Amino acid sequence: MAFSASVLTLYPEMFPGQLGMALAGKALEAERWTLETVQIRDFASDRHRSVDDTPAGGGAGMVMRPDILAKAIDATTAADDPRPRLLMSPRGKPFTQARARDIAAGPGVIIVCGRFEGVDQRVIEARQLEEISVGDYVLSGGEPAAHIILDAVVRLLPGVMGNADSGENESFENGLLEHPQYTRPQEFEGLAIPDILRSGNHALIDKWRHEQSLQLTGQRRPDLLDGTAGASRSKKPGKGR
Amino acid sequence: MAFSASVLTLYPEMFPGQLGMALAGKALEAERWTLETVQIRDFASDRHRSVDDTPAGGGAGMVMRPDILAKAIDATTAADDPRPRLLMSPRGKPFTQARARDIAAGPGVIIVCGRFEGVDQRVIEARQLEEISVGDYVLSGGEPAAHIILDAVVRLLPGVMGNADSGENESFENGLLEHPQYTRPQEFEGLAIPDILRSGNHALIDKWRHEQSLQLTGQRRPDLLDGTAGASRSKKPGKGR
Repeated sequence: MAFSASVLTLYPEMFPGQLGMALAGKALEAERWTLETVQIRDFASDRHRSVDDTPAGGGAGMVMRPDILAKAIDATTAADDPRPRLLMSPRGKPFTQARARDIAAGPGVIIVCGRFEGVDQRVIEARQLEEISVGDYVLSGGEPAAHIILDAVVRLLPGVMGNADSGENESFENGLLEHPQYTRPQEFEGLAIPDILRSGNHALIDKWRHEQSLQLTGQRRPDLLDGTAGASRSKKPGKGR
Repeated sequence: MAFSASVLTLYPEMFPGQLGMALAGKALEAERWTLETVQIRDFASDRHRSVDDTPAGGGAGMVMRPDILAKAIDATTAADDPRPRLLMSPRGKPFTQARARDIAAGPGVIIVCGRFEGVDQRVIEARQLEEISVGDYVLSGGEPAAHIILDAVVRLLPGVMGNADSGENESFENGLLEHPQYTRPQEFEGLAIPDILRSGNHALIDKWRHEQSLQLTGQRRPDLLDGTAGASRSKKPGKGR
């Protein structure tokens, strides 16, 4: 069975978008994964097809109604569907590379994209939605975050990347940021590739790369070194983006 | 002058994509921002139009050549261009809501999307590219990350969101995750909206929401409470995604 993704959204026209191109697009074409979109608005019951209402207790913005979203979820999935149900939300636990691997190892994923101020808490609980966040910033909606999650997961599916790449990422660097990379030409605007990389001494090269990684991580992400990275953050930011 | 975004990529067809729809799309149509894409491959000099080569010192994957990328950058921007030059990279400093506001307050942004194992370090330094990461996970390329950055920035541009929303986000919650939200119907599958939210007592409602926020943040993101969040992470994850 191919990995099966279902996305509930008010903007189904945003999918597959970039996921239909390049690596993910080739995998979609090769049926290594499938993508279904569900228009939440189709489950509205009034003639305005409204899906949101003002927040109980006051406040700015609009909140997605629990009843409409529940109907959309129930039409998409059954109680015995083993796929995780993710709700894109800045309140969620951080999405990490470890979680991407977990999801990629499973049968698929259901992604709910919220809009407005948020989603009624009761449907989050009643339908066991897991809030997940791709980063500490605010997006216009859940859709760009859904793209991120699907991109990170699809590249890990069997047969999508070359084996070499995949293995390399798997064992990456013990939680450090990657060392600098160099390639041809040998000289660029008067700058040469460091001599050590041309030495052919792989033990020395590995040592140099490790030191560079340590130094860079200390400068940019001390939280990765001292173990204070976000409670549920992966200690393994990857390479090769 | 409209906010001006230039994206250097091997996949210009991925833009505007979802950025041409909904909130960002309306803003693009209204010329509140402009989007230019530059195909890096157009600056290759050999007949295969190759932009990458094997890593100096060995290792898996391919590295983007400094000379080709430098030519693409030089054709896109001048030394006196005040726009920040971002390179999408998991090695970068984390992108935060505070950074989104900084960028939105400026004249625009230049975004370089890498592919392969990485980008030659010499062009990063010679062209003063600032590596920035949208999260601790690995994507197939910089393009989905560029979408995230542009989405987060464009919604903050003057006139793109309603004033109410914008102000609300600006003052958000002192670094806490947002409290639960509720809306109609009053009863959903036997679950009622909490009484307090129907009390009309706004002081009590504010107190309840603050307590809920504290509790949720403690459960999901203790790093935000104890000040150990990533060195350069924003303490203000937003709401309303």
